[in-house]
Amino acid sequence: MRDVAIIGVGMNKWGELWKSSLRDIAVESALKAIADAKVSRVDSIFIGCMSSGLFTGQEHMASVLADYLGYGRVPATRVESACASGGLAFKAGFAEVAAGMAEIVLVVGAEKMTDVSGNEATYALGTAADQEYECYNGATFPGLYAMMAARHMHEYGTTRRQLSLVASKNHDNGLKNPNAQFRMKVTPQEVEGSVMVSDPLRVLDCSPVTDGSAALILCPLTMAKKLSGRAGVRVLGIGHATDTIALHSRESLTTLRAVKEAGALAYKAAGVKPADIDLAEVHDCFTIAEIMVTEALGFAKPGEGGKLVESKATSFGGRIPVNVSGGLKSKGHPVGATGVAQLVELTEQLRRQAGTRQVKNAEIGLAQNMGGTGGSSIVTILGRN
Amino acid sequence: MRDVAIIGVGMNKWGELWKSSLRDIAVESALKAIADAKVSRVDSIFIGCMSSGLFTGQEHMASVLADYLGYGRVPATRVESACASGGLAFKAGFAEVAAGMAEIVLVVGAEKMTDVSGNEATYALGTAADQEYECYNGATFPGLYAMMAARHMHEYGTTRRQLSLVASKNHDNGLKNPNAQFRMKVTPQEVEGSVMVSDPLRVLDCSPVTDGSAALILCPLTMAKKLSGRAGVRVLGIGHATDTIALHSRESLTTLRAVKEAGALAYKAAGVKPADIDLAEVHDCFTIAEIMVTEALGFAKPGEGGKLVESKATSFGGRIPVNVSGGLKSKGHPVGATGVAQLVELTEQLRRQAGTRQVKNAEIGLAQNMGGTGGSSIVTILGRN
Repeated sequence: MRDVAIIGVGMNKWGELWKSSLRDIAVESALKAIADAKVSRVDSIFIGCMSSGLFTGQEHMASVLADYLGYGRVPATRVESACASGGLAFKAGFAEVAAGMAEIVLVVGAEKMTDVSGNEATYALGTAADQEYECYNGATFPGLYAMMAARHMHEYGTTRRQLSLVASKNHDNGLKNPNAQFRMKVTPQEVEGSVMVSDPLRVLDCSPVTDGSAALILCPLTMAKKLSGRAGVRVLGIGHATDTIALHSRESLTTLRAVKEAGALAYKAAGVKPADIDLAEVHDCFTIAEIMVTEALGFAKPGEGGKLVESKATSFGGRIPVNVSGGLKSKGHPVGATGVAQLVELTEQLRRQAGTRQVKNAEIGLAQNMGGTGGSSIVTILGRN
Repeated sequence: MRDVAIIGVGMNKWGELWKSSLRDIAVESALKAIADAKVSRVDSIFIGCMSSGLFTGQEHMASVLADYLGYGRVPATRVESACASGGLAFKAGFAEVAAGMAEIVLVVGAEKMTDVSGNEATYALGTAADQEYECYNGATFPGLYAMMAARHMHEYGTTRRQLSLVASKNHDNGLKNPNAQFRMKVTPQEVEGSVMVSDPLRVLDCSPVTDGSAALILCPLTMAKKLSGRAGVRVLGIGHATDTIALHSRESLTTLRAVKEAGALAYKAAGVKPADIDLAEVHDCFTIAEIMVTEALGFAKPGEGGKLVESKATSFGGRIPVNVSGGLKSKGHPVGATGVAQLVELTEQLRRQAGTRQVKNAEIGLAQNMGGTGGSSIVTILGRN
């Protein structure tokens, strides 16, 4: 198996991009990544996209993307795993480089979510959960995470204030990210005073509906310098796991088993421990998610994710900064793009090109991307080369 | 890159499976493939599915499938490329085995198409074409293939009778396939007397709307015997390519460039020529498609695909039998399942276990799977081991 490097990244400004179609958005970041990598060809293309069918009436985005990039013969593949689509597209691209099936692989994550009504978006997002047993019976996505939050508060004494601190921290970080959708300061008081969505989660506990894309270029590690003039950022390890699709089938509502398993596999593959991680981009689709994920990844003991954020350990400048990009909360959450954007952020950080968001001396970064309420998760660890 | 073998296959009876949900259908063939391979574990799962979001309201099928198989920790990935989703899921699974990322990989193709109305199905299938420029302006999928057929008739003198012979041949073959949806003899006269869908294509020129699944198990070639007690069927080569998503952007309406390119790549990887192929399963979503595909794969010269079927070379017992399974036309076309089912048929043929459909002395088989009007295509060549 060949070692693999990231040699180029690209992203567009995320938000409500009413003037751009899904194909425009996907092409925009892909061209930036190709330019950044300085490559003159691409051997294979992967696109992570959760629900272009329901959001835009277009499946077969792999062919659309290759076509609109002017790469109309290059093999292209779409990968979907709900909100983990981007992370899994990366894994599929990694496999082709590792196997020797392709040298230069473009991985794009993209989603266009604002061309449908709120009800239609809620329906589309619900397709990440168990439609037959959860959504058809009235559960919404925020409702499912609200049950996890309520149970976490009950079992571990996690507080309303701790949830608010996740939102507040990530919005502070997002202020420094020019591509973020919601660049605004949010105080814990504002989170707590915001509209209730599903008790205990308020609107400022939730990641937004976003249009956006992110892209990166992979190649064999040994070719990085020659192709791009840079050493490249090294893929140290990937872990990927699933859990039951429905929340009611889980042993515990407060343990993200797929995240725990994916993290353990990634740490093992990379030969590192949680304490070795310099920064992490995690899947804060709701504030409670970041708390549970930091526990599952071993940054805090079970039940102590709330205390972790309160201790400022996950703040910028803390022991293990989490979501310095602004996270899904402030940067936005175009579902299929998120997993790729996390790796774009880590790459910029490990290259020491993250500007005012730069985590000092960042050597090892971790990205955790999750589908549904944790029915699938992928953890990828990158290292400065 | 490790050599890869298919060591297990499974399929269910295709048709209008109103008593089964998508997850039931997917699990059914997966369990058959696992039993056939005699494996006690699976390291990674891939599912090809075109539009579970539009057809059933469920994305995130990778997590659903792992969960309902009782493999709730195993990494699982959904791959989509319209009607080539199954073929591409196979390629993604192949990559993980080839790279050494997994030993035993389950690949499933599944689609449930009959839980929606005819209009909704037509809409969902249209998402394989260019929605912005084709379907939103009134083109339907049969309409696009009808334009290709009309142009092929105009340029090459392909006849109405030649189209009918494709349908008639494939229904003759399907009579011998217990899993086929439409096991009935169809005469050329019946095709020509059937209801017009989009001139010149009549309803018996079109593949049906189908519920169904197919599955197979991959492993490193060197492990095949030890794991399954059989030598396994060897993957000799894979070729994958794209073309413009929209028909109006093509240089020619009568050349399937992605198929030609994918075929050339697969022949090169396998080290074989068209004349070496003992049987082929090709993507006859419409009768004209089989004619154009046999040309693109080099079984006939450009424009002579109609004469090829007329010569009976592609009939059972002919020089290069095409679609001995019944093809999409008679066996059915659950869009995401088709690419996997083609490989299931080839595996049974190369194992010499195809019963009354058995092609004598079959040593090398080719499967060609296609998305949309040829916006993507994948060609896989398998060899008896």
